[in-house]
Formats: sequence, C-alpha cells, structure tokens
Amino acid sequence: MTSLASNQRGSLNPLFEPRAIAVYGASSDPTKIGGRPLDFLKGSGYDGPLYPINPKAAQIQGLPSFATVAAVPGPVDLAIVAVPAPAVLAALEDCAAKGVGGAVVLSSGFAEVGGQGAQWQQQISALTNRTGMRVVGPNCMGIINVRRRILGTFTPSAAGFGLAPGRISLVSQSGAFGGYCLSLIRQRGLGLNLWITTGNQCDVDFADCVNHYAQDDGTDVIVGYVEAATDKDRLISALALARERGKRIVMMKVGSSEAGAHATASHTASLAGSDQVYDGLFKQYGVYRARTIDELFDVAYACSVVRQSPKGKRIGLLTVSGGVGALMADVATDCGLDVAPMPEDAQRRLKEILPFAGPRNPVDMTAQLVNDLTLFEKNFQLMLEEGGYDVVVAFLSSVGQVLDLSTRLLEQLKKVLQRFPDRTVIVSTLASPEVRKLYEAAGVMLFDEPTRAVRAASALVHMAAEVERARTLSAPPLLPAAALAPPGHAINEVDAKRVLASAGIPVVRELVAATADAAARCAAEIGYPVVLKIASADIAHKSEIGGVIVGLQDEAQVRSAFGTLLQRAKTHAPQARIDGVVVAQMAGKGVETILGVVRDPVFGAVVMFGLGGVFVEAFKDVAFRVAPFGVDEARAMIGEVKGRILLTGLRGQPPADEDALATAIAALSVYAARHEAAIESIDINPFVVLPLGQGALALDALIVPSAGR
Amino acid sequence: MTSLASNQRGSLNPLFEPRAIAVYGASSDPTKIGGRPLDFLKGSGYDGPLYPINPKAAQIQGLPSFATVAAVPGPVDLAIVAVPAPAVLAALEDCAAKGVGGAVVLSSGFAEVGGQGAQWQQQISALTNRTGMRVVGPNCMGIINVRRRILGTFTPSAAGFGLAPGRISLVSQSGAFGGYCLSLIRQRGLGLNLWITTGNQCDVDFADCVNHYAQDDGTDVIVGYVEAATDKDRLISALALARERGKRIVMMKVGSSEAGAHATASHTASLAGSDQVYDGLFKQYGVYRARTIDELFDVAYACSVVRQSPKGKRIGLLTVSGGVGALMADVATDCGLDVAPMPEDAQRRLKEILPFAGPRNPVDMTAQLVNDLTLFEKNFQLMLEEGGYDVVVAFLSSVGQVLDLSTRLLEQLKKVLQRFPDRTVIVSTLASPEVRKLYEAAGVMLFDEPTRAVRAASALVHMAAEVERARTLSAPPLLPAAALAPPGHAINEVDAKRVLASAGIPVVRELVAATADAAARCAAEIGYPVVLKIASADIAHKSEIGGVIVGLQDEAQVRSAFGTLLQRAKTHAPQARIDGVVVAQMAGKGVETILGVVRDPVFGAVVMFGLGGVFVEAFKDVAFRVAPFGVDEARAMIGEVKGRILLTGLRGQPPADEDALATAIAALSVYAARHEAAIESIDINPFVVLPLGQGALALDALIVPSAGR
Repeated sequence: MTSLASNQRGSLNPLFEPRAIAVYGASSDPTKIGGRPLDFLKGSGYDGPLYPINPKAAQIQGLPSFATVAAVPGPVDLAIVAVPAPAVLAALEDCAAKGVGGAVVLSSGFAEVGGQGAQWQQQISALTNRTGMRVVGPNCMGIINVRRRILGTFTPSAAGFGLAPGRISLVSQSGAFGGYCLSLIRQRGLGLNLWITTGNQCDVDFADCVNHYAQDDGTDVIVGYVEAATDKDRLISALALARERGKRIVMMKVGSSEAGAHATASHTASLAGSDQVYDGLFKQYGVYRARTIDELFDVAYACSVVRQSPKGKRIGLLTVSGGVGALMADVATDCGLDVAPMPEDAQRRLKEILPFAGPRNPVDMTAQLVNDLTLFEKNFQLMLEEGGYDVVVAFLSSVGQVLDLSTRLLEQLKKVLQRFPDRTVIVSTLASPEVRKLYEAAGVMLFDEPTRAVRAASALVHMAAEVERARTLSAPPLLPAAALAPPGHAINEVDAKRVLASAGIPVVRELVAATADAAARCAAEIGYPVVLKIASADIAHKSEIGGVIVGLQDEAQVRSAFGTLLQRAKTHAPQARIDGVVVAQMAGKGVETILGVVRDPVFGAVVMFGLGGVFVEAFKDVAFRVAPFGVDEARAMIGEVKGRILLTGLRGQPPADEDALATAIAALSVYAARHEAAIESIDINPFVVLPLGQGALALDALIVPSAGR
Repeated sequence: MTSLASNQRGSLNPLFEPRAIAVYGASSDPTKIGGRPLDFLKGSGYDGPLYPINPKAAQIQGLPSFATVAAVPGPVDLAIVAVPAPAVLAALEDCAAKGVGGAVVLSSGFAEVGGQGAQWQQQISALTNRTGMRVVGPNCMGIINVRRRILGTFTPSAAGFGLAPGRISLVSQSGAFGGYCLSLIRQRGLGLNLWITTGNQCDVDFADCVNHYAQDDGTDVIVGYVEAATDKDRLISALALARERGKRIVMMKVGSSEAGAHATASHTASLAGSDQVYDGLFKQYGVYRARTIDELFDVAYACSVVRQSPKGKRIGLLTVSGGVGALMADVATDCGLDVAPMPEDAQRRLKEILPFAGPRNPVDMTAQLVNDLTLFEKNFQLMLEEGGYDVVVAFLSSVGQVLDLSTRLLEQLKKVLQRFPDRTVIVSTLASPEVRKLYEAAGVMLFDEPTRAVRAASALVHMAAEVERARTLSAPPLLPAAALAPPGHAINEVDAKRVLASAGIPVVRELVAATADAAARCAAEIGYPVVLKIASADIAHKSEIGGVIVGLQDEAQVRSAFGTLLQRAKTHAPQARIDGVVVAQMAGKGVETILGVVRDPVFGAVVMFGLGGVFVEAFKDVAFRVAPFGVDEARAMIGEVKGRILLTGLRGQPPADEDALATAIAALSVYAARHEAAIESIDINPFVVLPLGQGALALDALIVPSAGR
C-alpha cells in the first residue's frame, strides 16, 4: 500500500482481512442485530477465531463469551459492535485499548437522530483520530469479504452465504441499498469480492473504501452507491488512483430531481452537492454513471467478464432475427457506437455462405442457424477478420435454453476467440444457468435482452476510451505569475475582465472614460466601430436599462452616446455609483458561449460551460467539471453539450476557434481553484468564440467575491 | 363484429377459432416444419379434429392421413400449410374449394426471394381476393390461441406448450421476433391469449390482426412488432377502434437509426415510411412505443395486471431504502409524473408512527418495517387517503423472497386496496414465483427492479391520459369552401401564401409590385415600415443573394430598395424569372416556428412542426403527425417539442399565441390531406407566432407540387 494512496489514514486491512473477530453485544437470538453476524460467521466458514462479547452469559450461540474484549486471550483485528448507542463509545474505547485495528458499528441512534446521538458520534470520531483505529458506521449494515467468508453484517440478504467469489467489490453509503444489491448479486450469480456499507461515516467514508478497492488486487470492478461525498480531495485521489490502476468504476448517485434530492438530503442530513457536479466529476475521472440498478449490475457484470477492453467503437451485430438486429443497430447508434457496414467483398462472401442472409451489419443468419451451426463460426470469423469490429454482439434468441446446441456454438466461438484475443464478444440469448456458466468461463458474457447487451458493449467501449484518454490527459495549465487576486468587494465589469485577463482569459479591448472627451480619445485608440456601456458595479443588467449602445462609427456618435448613457443611468438607477462609460472594441461575429464558476458545498470551485442564448435556459445544455483541469478536459466539456454543433460551423458559417475556447476554460479552472475560498461565482457571458484562428474573447464578466471575506 | 371494423374484409375467426384443423404437408418427423405443428397440436390438448394431409402415407404421427383436404370427411376451418413453395398455391386452391375459412402458410420461398417466388405470392393474393379465404404468411411462424390450445406454428419456443392463458395478444410482422417473444412470455409467466406472425403478408396483415384483437373480448392488451405498414387507412382505423374499445396497445418499431432502417428495409423488401412518422402516428392513436424488449413486456404486463387505469399523474413512493426512494423519485420526475409531497398534517402523522421516517414523498419506512409489519398498512392508508396519489410504487427490497412475510404484507395491502379501488399499486421486490402469483391475483403487479416499476407506472398513467384525451379530441376542422387547389407547377412565395391563406392559414399582408411606383403605392396601402423581397419562383433562398431588405420607413427608401433588389437578382440569378418585388408588412416581434408537410411513402401527407432557427437543425426537435387532425392534436404536437419553452414567454417575453399556432397547424393538416396526391411538400418558414391574442402569420412559404402530375 503506497503512502500516497492511503493519505496518512490507516489501512482498512484490519476490517477486511482480520485474523480474529469479536462481536460486541453478541446475542443468543440469531435474528437480533447482535445475534445475526455471529450466526452468519459461524455458518459461513470463516477460518479465524470468533469471540462473542457479552458480560451476561458464559456462552453465546455455543461459543465462550467474554465480558469485554480486554478479556479475550489472543489478538483481535476486527470488532463488530451491536450494543445500544449509549454503550458504543465505551466498547470502542475497550477495543482501542486492546489494539483492535478496526470496528464496524451496526448500532443506530447517532447523527441520524441528532441531539445526544450526534454528540456520541463526534466522540467516536475523536476516538478514531486519537487512536488510528478505523471505524465503519455507526448506523450501517457492515462488511463482507467473500473470499475470506467474512459476513460482518446483519442484512438478511447475507443469510445462507450464497455468494460466489469474484472480482466485483461494492461500497454503498446506504445500508438498505447495499442489502438490496447483495440480494441482486446473489440472484444474478455475480462474483463478489468485498462489500461495505458506510452508514454515518464517522471515520471510514466512501472515499476510503474506493481508495482501498483501488489498491486491492482481488478487485477489478468497483460498484459504488454514493449519496453525499464528504472529502473532495480524498474522493478525487481515490478515483484517480483507481483509474491509474486499471480498475473500472460503475456508480450510482441519486437525487437528480428535486424530490429525489430532498429525500437524499433528509436521509443523510448532509449537503449533497449539486447533482450536475457529480455528473461532471464522474466524467472527469472515467466513472460510469448508471441510471438504473439493472444498468449498475449489467455494466459491473460486463466489466468483470470481459477479456480485454475494446480498442475502439466499431460494433458488429450478428443476429438470427432481422428485427432484433435492427433494434440493436438503433440502440448502438443511440449509444454513439459505430455500426460500420461489412466491406463489400466480405458481404459477397457472406451471401455465398447464406444467400438469404442480411450481410451488411447487422449480419442476419436467420433461423437457418439451427439447421447449419457452422454458420456461426463462419460469420463470426468474417466479422472479426474482415469487419474488424472491436465488439460483436450476437443475438441467438432462446438458443441458450438448449444445452447441447449452446455447447456446440460455444466450441465454434472459442476457436474464433483464440484467433482474435483482443476482441469483445457478447451473446444475447435466454440462457439456462448452466449455459450461462459455460459461456462466462470462456470470457463471453450473456444477456437475456439484446438492448441491454448493446448498452453493456457501449459501456465497455466508453470506459476503455476513458482509460486511453487518461493516459495522455494534459495537466492543468500554470497560473500566470502576474495573475491578480480576486476582488474583496463588488467590482465593475471592466475590473472583472482585467482580473480575468491577468489569469489568461482573453477579453475584449476596452477602456473606461469618465468624460465625453476621454471617451472620444479612447475610441480613437481602440479603433472604430466601438461599443459604449455604462460602467458601474451597481448595475448588473445594463442592457435592460438601455445601458449599452453598439456600432458607434465616429467621434460625434461617441460623444452623443456618452451623454445618452449617463442620462439613462441617472433616470433608471439613480442610486448607482457610476464609474463612467466603457469604450470597447466591437467584437467580430462569433458564437456566444457562457463560462461560469460556482462554489459547490462539497466540491468547491466548479466550472460550467454552455452555449449562449436559450440553450442554457431552455435545454439545460451545460457541462460541469471540478476545478482545476487541463485543456483536454475542457475540450471534453465542449464536446459534451449538444449546442456544440453551433461551434462546428452550421449553415455555412466558419467553424469556431475551439482551441481558444478550451484554453480559456482551462485557464479559468486554474484561477478558480487557486482562489476557491475567495470566489463565490464568476459569470462570463457572453464569451464570444470567433472563427478558427481568430481566438475568443469575453465581452462581459461578473466576479462575485465570497460573502464570508 | 361490426362492419365498420372489419372493413369488408373477412373475419380472422376461422384462423383463431377453428372447429377442425388440417395440416398440409404433415410429416412423420416431429422436428420438421411439416411435422412440428401436428406434434404440437396432438400434445397441446386442442379439442377439435386434426387431419394430416399427405398423399404418401396412410398415417402420420398416428393419425389417419388424407391425400388432399377434399378427402377429409368433415368440415375444416383452418389449414396449416407446410408443403414446399411450388406446391402451396395448389394446396390453397384445394382448401378454398373445400370451403376452408383460413390458412397459415409456413413455407418460405416467396416474395422474400423474389423471381418465381414473388409471382407465386401474387397468385396467392389473387386467390384470397377471389375466394375470401384468409391466408396468413407465407414465410411466417404461424398462429397460437392459448385458450383453445391451438399451436399452429413450428417455432421451437412453443414446444411443450408452457403458456398460461391471459389477456395479452401479440402480433409480430417478424417470425423470429415473434418466436423470441414467445420464449420471453413463457419465461416471465405472462398470460397470453392470441399470437400471430404475419410474415410476407400476402393477405392477412398487421392491421388486420390489430383490428381482430381490437374486437376480441379475450384481449385487453395488444403487443405489436411492426416493420412496415402496408395500408395506412386500415392500420389507422384498427388503432382507433382499439382505443375506442379500451384496449391498450404497446408497440415496437425498429429502424430509427440509419443502420437499423437499412437492416429493416433489406429484411422486409418494402418501404418502411419514416421512423419519426411512426412515432407521430403512435402518439396520435395512444399507442405506447417501447424502446426495448424489456419495456415492451414490462408495459404489457402492467396493462394486463392493473385493476383500473390511474386517474392522474400523482405518484406516491413508499420505500424501505431512502436511496432507492430517491432513485424512484428521480425516474418518476424524468417520466413527467408528479412526485407531490404528502400534506403537512399527514407528514406529522407519519412521523408519529415512525419518528425516523422520511415522511414527505418518498415515504421511507426504513428497515423498521421488518420489525413492525403494520407500518405498511398504516403508511399505505395515509398515502392513499391523505396523499391522494393515483399510483403508489412500494419498494420492498428482497422481502418478496420470504413467503410468510410477503403474505402478511399482502393481507394488509388488500385491506387498503378494498377501500381505494380506483388506485394503482405496484410493488418492487425480488420475488419468488409463488409470491408473484399471490400478488398478481390481487391486482398488484411486481417488478424486481424499482426503476422499471416506476416506468411501468408512468406508462399506465400516460396511456390512461391518452384514453381520456381521445374522448374529447376535436375533429379536423372543415376545409374552407374557397380553398384554392395546389399549383401544378412551381409558384412564387406570394402565390404560395395566397393558396395557404385560402386554406385558413394566416399569412403576412403583402402585395407584388412590378415597378418602383407600384412598390411605393403598395407600401402606402400596407402601411410603413415594410419589407421588400425579390418575387421569383426560381429563387428559393432569397436572403442568400441579398434579396430581402427589411425596415423600410418611407417612400424614398422603398424606391431605392426596389432598384437594389432588381440589380442583385440580375447579378446573382441572371436566369431567374423575376415577377417583381414583394412589398410586405413588417411582422411584429414573435417566436419563429416552422410548419411543414411531407409525403410519406406509407402514411401520405404528414405534418411537421418545430421551432425556427437552430432547433430543427441542431436538436432535431420536431413533431410529426399524419394528416388530417384537429386543433387538440396540433396542441399536443406543440407540447411535444422541447423548444416550446420559447412560446411560453422566456426571459420576460410575453407568452405566444399558441391557439393561433395550433389552429394553423390543424388547418394545414386538413389542406394537406385533401390534396395529398398533388403535394410533394410544403414548407412554411418562418411561421411567426405573435404574443397571446395577436395571432400568428406565415412570412415565407414554399409549395412543391407532386412530380408525377
């Protein structure tokens, strides 16, 4: 374990790899919270000593019981604590004194009920800080290590074990969600490695668990359910470490709707951060965000079975039903995959093999497959060799219910797979459990439903692309040495742009003039035509009071406009402090975009990008990222918004200078991150992107300093 | 059966309700196409006589065989035909002579292979027209009637029967798709009534089957898979009849992507019509379009189990996991359902019942439910009584795997359901098959996955709303008596608008002037300011050659603009015939929209609506409907596009006159339908919608007459 990854916090090894386990509050009744973990552990096949801790009995569930953990003869690594809330702290102090490395507090009645409970929880946190003992919970469902057969949980979903060892590890902030997932994992027969629910997170939090899984050689796939991250930096470094170590992360985050966010907030009693910010963070670190529980486990399953990550997004579709073939093509296209047709020559060869076949892509074997099983191998071979597809999804209807047929098809498939070890193959068929096992053992994943097979293919492709992208991702640019500090009070737009310009963001050429004479001089210096605007920190929406006059061609027009503007300001905003007028260069014709910075309660400085006009308001067509980041990430943000099409040169317009735009966004992110505490928000609107090679520039900007300063 | 519904075509009753069945080409080998249906029918429990027809054997599969159907002693209603393609026509002639009412041709080798096969198929069509015998296929998978235990098919998916009788009937144009669905229906334990695959549709087509199901008292839910409709009018009247008779229709149509459409076209060798047009048609007739096979059967299942249709879109969410509650709230919000909070007072009462509960909506019972089962009844009762929810989805994690617990919860649920017979209740839990049966018998549907439960709820709500909407749907308006016929040749925009104005579509006030003097007179008559435009049928994109000059304030400006325009036309389009200039009123500030008509190969005149500017180009944000339709349907189109937000008064703008817009769209649809054959396309762009009460008007229009005329 590297010190970088563990971040000076103690390892979670005592929790997941204990040599001996004590159960505090162990009960003789195996249906009680204090009885169930002991019952589970006794029956699961865990190979270490188990010590019930209960002063009221000499034996619990047939095992000798101890009054406290201090009385236990040997060492104890893990304590499972199920005593009532008022007794938890004392139990944990005993554990710390004994040198127990980790504890899982199943008991509830802490921060989630407030009052005294919240105080107790604070005391537990203080204890963990003091002693370094790692504590999971309180108010959690516990932990599982399948390989070690450790069931440190009271969820009924763990009853009877019933878990297959595998390479998926799960962390859920919610216990109920974690329990449900466990039942699903059993039902679907997925292979599980580690499982943890973090509850109130008095010490061990979601980020700690991701960090642990990132370093765990037994884990390939991390499944997460997060409600409210607590420590941005640790979460980000855990996600980055996981990506670096080639782990796949599939995550669910709820609360995108108002009702959902309300439910989450009341549930966790904590600020969750904006849902869109999580979305940006996940994109930033290659986390696949699942929107349904089906999808969460479809993708986790695919990641755990796949042989090698797909190298590209070319998808081949092989089918026994033309209709399902077309359906898969529709979904693949929706997912952004490339349903490239087979080469002409290969199509001819497919037609020779089966004259009535659809040879293009999807390749339709028709029901003829049942009469001639060799069609499968021949078609597959041609698709991988000639079609060069990175992924092939084959729809075989209900063939998977016939063991003999399925086995013969798999033999053919294996031959082809050997020749093309770098390709991903997914089969969609209604399969019996035996057939499923056979195929999975050969690295071929099975899905009942063809659209889910295609979506899983898409997830694999996009996650692999993210890993590739991360390899060469540009670092955040350096903040210019001359960058000005953000203002401590409201400033006018000219000053705001001066600050932003110092940070490397291109702004319009402009000067402030206090008199008509000065305005005329400024205009001459900048060059006609010019724009005149009221300069005042107190007037946020200048155009609404007629405070902007564009297209001024000569000195006479400038002098006249100067007078008009001052008059309008006096009439419409008599209280406003007026610094004069801004004389600005008329920007060339470009695409209007909006750049923004907001401060998220969890993730700090967050950068927003969207197209100007109605796109942001009507379509919420915006991208977020946590600051700071480099130009590549900025480019990804630009690529993410639908309105980007306006930048590519719609209706015969020239393409816009996306390089200049991406450079500005990255520079903004670096400035925002550096001055996170001082900035409440930044709004650059419009930020005009000129035609390719001509750059971009901020026409207007607002910097709101932090209220607290 | 009403004559209206049957459309003068013979009933399908002989196919689905035969008193006796003959199998032409019956084989002794039960794995052959001619052997399998006989084998299935012998084993299924069909109660009528079975007659193998095969001149080469005295007995087939233990039944006496006949040389031809003429030799059969009693009457025969249904013939299943599995002889090779060249012998099919003769077999069908025999059947017709015998008075057989219907035949199912399983054999392939007809239109799908072209040449002689296509000719044979035409001959079969001619036979059906001549005799009135109804023929399914050729090249199809056959038919099933579960109640009558008729398996007139060779799909392996029907082997062993294994089908539960129920109220879902299925029609699939694709045999492979139909077979796969049959396997799925068995796997999911759905109740099936009738099943048919229509194959090459030489006679019985998709529309016939929908029409039959619409009239079938044993069918509540129609599941359809359509690739290419053949007869617009019969399909529409079948869909309308089904809606009128309270049937729910769930349909899958593939080919929305280019690759998918290509696959479908090559598969059916027929023009499919535009995918967006199908989408519009489905919306128009209350058909639920499923996008995945999971969804197809989730929704069909929900429709078949639901007690009464939901009256509104208020959804209550009850959960044992706060996280899943929030997830369900997110999905419900996405689906357009109203996740309304519980009334304050009811929330207080919920808090009294369970202090740690989330009482708002979702209502979180927490894992406490397992300790106190009465929480379920109490919470449900309060949600239905005080919350007034139309639908409640309850997430119970894996409780459904415990029979005892599930049974006790169901008893409570039943009590509440009795008090609220008009509410819909959906439970999401991982359930054992027994638990599933128990709940379904009580009218409570079960879903493993909570987001699928919410999506099913949404489908029920939206389908019920469609039925309500259909009750009061306004008829298409009358075409004005003075409406002009469409032009037989290219006409200029002024003439195009004159035609449209005659059809009841408001257009801008404008006059054509051939001289500068005339232009000045026209401007005076219309009133300043005016717009001048080149008038020429040969210049489609006037603004690109500078052919439009706006904001002309007086006679001098008009005279000057006249000269400028003629000069520009001469320079940029020297070949164009120039009719003069158009002098038009300057329209007030409004929202630019686009109205269009296109001719679909299957559905004829189709109306398109979208917002102007980049919305159509960048976002494909448009709605389609098959013409003609009334104002209510036009309003539904408007409501469907995302850009509609611009019409509602964004950024302090006044709301736009949507009534005028809807009236114009409906009028356009009536005109387009009346002159379907004469019009290739109509493009009204922009159609400006003015502020509420001020109407709307076409600024420019193009009518392209049919090429064939």
